[in-house]
Amino acid sequence: MANTPGIPKGTRDFSPEILAKRNYIFDIIKDVFKKFAYRQLETPAMENLSTLTGKYGEEGDKLLFKILNSGNFLKKVTDPELQERDTKKMAHLVAEKGLRYDLTVPFARYVVQHQNEITFPFKRFQIQPVWRADRPQKGRYREFYQCDADIIGSYSLINELEIVQMIDEVFTKLNLEVTIKINNRKLLAGIAERIGYPEKLIDLTVAIDKLDKIGLEKVYEELRLAGISDDAINFLEPILNLGGSFNDQMQCIERFIGETETGVTGIVETEKLFSYLDMFKFNNNIELDLTLARGLTYYTGAIFEVISDEIQIGSICGGGRYDDLTGIFGLKGVSGVGISFGADRIFDVMENLNRFPEDTTSSVKLMFVNFGQKEEKYCLPVLQKLRQNGINSEIFPDSSKMKKQMKYANSNKIPYVALAGENEMQENKFTLKNMETGEQQLVTAAEMIKALT
Amino acid sequence: MANTPGIPKGTRDFSPEILAKRNYIFDIIKDVFKKFAYRQLETPAMENLSTLTGKYGEEGDKLLFKILNSGNFLKKVTDPELQERDTKKMAHLVAEKGLRYDLTVPFARYVVQHQNEITFPFKRFQIQPVWRADRPQKGRYREFYQCDADIIGSYSLINELEIVQMIDEVFTKLNLEVTIKINNRKLLAGIAERIGYPEKLIDLTVAIDKLDKIGLEKVYEELRLAGISDDAINFLEPILNLGGSFNDQMQCIERFIGETETGVTGIVETEKLFSYLDMFKFNNNIELDLTLARGLTYYTGAIFEVISDEIQIGSICGGGRYDDLTGIFGLKGVSGVGISFGADRIFDVMENLNRFPEDTTSSVKLMFVNFGQKEEKYCLPVLQKLRQNGINSEIFPDSSKMKKQMKYANSNKIPYVALAGENEMQENKFTLKNMETGEQQLVTAAEMIKALT
Repeated sequence: MANTPGIPKGTRDFSPEILAKRNYIFDIIKDVFKKFAYRQLETPAMENLSTLTGKYGEEGDKLLFKILNSGNFLKKVTDPELQERDTKKMAHLVAEKGLRYDLTVPFARYVVQHQNEITFPFKRFQIQPVWRADRPQKGRYREFYQCDADIIGSYSLINELEIVQMIDEVFTKLNLEVTIKINNRKLLAGIAERIGYPEKLIDLTVAIDKLDKIGLEKVYEELRLAGISDDAINFLEPILNLGGSFNDQMQCIERFIGETETGVTGIVETEKLFSYLDMFKFNNNIELDLTLARGLTYYTGAIFEVISDEIQIGSICGGGRYDDLTGIFGLKGVSGVGISFGADRIFDVMENLNRFPEDTTSSVKLMFVNFGQKEEKYCLPVLQKLRQNGINSEIFPDSSKMKKQMKYANSNKIPYVALAGENEMQENKFTLKNMETGEQQLVTAAEMIKALT
Repeated sequence: MANTPGIPKGTRDFSPEILAKRNYIFDIIKDVFKKFAYRQLETPAMENLSTLTGKYGEEGDKLLFKILNSGNFLKKVTDPELQERDTKKMAHLVAEKGLRYDLTVPFARYVVQHQNEITFPFKRFQIQPVWRADRPQKGRYREFYQCDADIIGSYSLINELEIVQMIDEVFTKLNLEVTIKINNRKLLAGIAERIGYPEKLIDLTVAIDKLDKIGLEKVYEELRLAGISDDAINFLEPILNLGGSFNDQMQCIERFIGETETGVTGIVETEKLFSYLDMFKFNNNIELDLTLARGLTYYTGAIFEVISDEIQIGSICGGGRYDDLTGIFGLKGVSGVGISFGADRIFDVMENLNRFPEDTTSSVKLMFVNFGQKEEKYCLPVLQKLRQNGINSEIFPDSSKMKKQMKYANSNKIPYVALAGENEMQENKFTLKNMETGEQQLVTAAEMIKALT
């Protein structure tokens, strides 16, 4: 027990100072979700492994944290199985439950399980931790929070409009400048069809998704490896290099896609969404980006991605429309659209750019210095009055040395301290000290309350 | 996949309606903690099993959820060990991590790990789920939230005073009437010493703790089983039957305890705490209860317990002072005092007594009915204005049948809907319908905003 205890790798303690900053981000996101009438849902940390397994690909299955069955966990394992030591095969026999890997699958499970109680469309948001047995590295953790909002059971493009409005409002409130990129999977499907490879949509999507990271040449290489001909790739080139105004891009893509059915639907949807967007002013850039692909294969309509204009860090928010989220649990034909904010990356951006308001880390406004029993009794009723007036405040509990008490106030970033010794008590007053400027004032309790509210 | 998916037994989904009520409780507790300058901390869901094991007794160890090591989890198990099938022995070889069982041990671990960064006294609160592999039953879950506040590194009884103040404020704000029972473990130690069994303090504590549940006779039986003589039990009787005012009780206990050192310290502490309490008015009953024992053995000073005056449900909040919380991790001599609110039981009390304010479950104030494209475009800018004025609101995204739209508004408990058809649009107005009274008004956008704020 002499060793200093630690925590599992890839996990974090959030000290009060860090947590206050994290909550500043979460609270802004939460308030915007609520303003748009999304309702908060929470699901258990543990799900049955049967719910989770097979939903995140083979790689994802490996990254699921499994919970050892209680008691005799080898109960279902036969002797030959035990001797075989095939842990991959054995895992589901010794563990029936796993930790939530994302918020999407539990949401789909919830919707299917409670379909008869839910009035559709169902607008839910969810801010909870998820766990992945990933190799920990800078900026990647084994426990991290996701902040998701989804509306399910509505095809209306108003939902897409509102997602863009929510993104714009969140980042405006966070005082960050971002670009909101929009594309539509149906346009990509139209393109795949037009270049003669409708069945290669996923390969095309995955390759284009890497354009920012690996550049045009390597994307071509990937497309070639996927079996797409050089002719088709050449034909594709103008699309990948597309720029200019929304109208210019749409004209070009219309010409390119031509008559393919999915492509035409994509054009109609995109034009309608942008006509909604045209009704409003946004604080951030919004652009159509035909090279935006988003890795996840389940998207089927509009897709979104947000990048910082001020710092290079990759996507800090993303989402899109999907047509079959709940199909995996047997409920077909429920369309939805959702968004997920990357709280950890947003935190890093805010920290880097120094955008947290100065008073984020301390909600405590004042500390009474404790000079001893008599002074304590003089301060305590006033402390109560401060609190009754909604002022977060405290008294140093022990009559320790002044230096220790001031150190406490300083390291907790408390902006004011109140002192009351013989003189102050005789006058029925307090010395109010501004910890930043060092300025001191002799004030009554009422004046102190006024100064702090 | 055709079966409806479920969740692990003992866990719960919190639907938006239930979660809003839970958050109502959490927010009140959180605000009071903050008002008293407690700072929020979060620790990871997973801890190393070496941190958790042995801290909750043998029974507790069995109830820890263990996380199966990733990959080849049998790596450290030898063939003979495997054949032995001793899963109790094998558990720590296949699982290095476990889920948090309470918030106290992770807090102690955090304090020891970060002792050089922390300015003491350290006042932290923590509201997070914990997991126990208990047999699920009514009111007992495998995943539940704890709401703890502790101050560590201060002996001052001001901390005890403030804990009582926090309890009083939380339950006042929740509109619940409670009794706050107070005792001091040092008084119990004095009693144990005085009846001649100082070494039986824990047996005495555990037995007295059950007084409410099993009655006096069975407590005597337990004491006898613990080896306490009939003479001693007879001598104890007046203490267990003690009633009357604080002063009467203290006089009796002073006479009883006499000169035992710990007992006298207990008397001094209790009198000082009550003299602090006498300085303030409380909304709830506060009483000294010498039969209050609190099960946990680590308490060493004041102990607290809160029961509802309106409904019989057991303790809904409890805590106390401990002198050696961090000793288990090698940091000795750090005294602290803490409190834990039982959110699940408080929820049940609130639900039973119907004490949640009516508007708890919906923060959404208004829904625009969607009559079609033209009407939509008329409503959307006004919807944005409402939101800009801080009004949580929405438009039904599809122009579905009126009945479906009204059903949505009803089941989401939205208090107002706004309708705009040909007539309203010509007049540049809206029909504002109060969903509870059925009352309708023709109003401008500005009037609507005014009516809703």
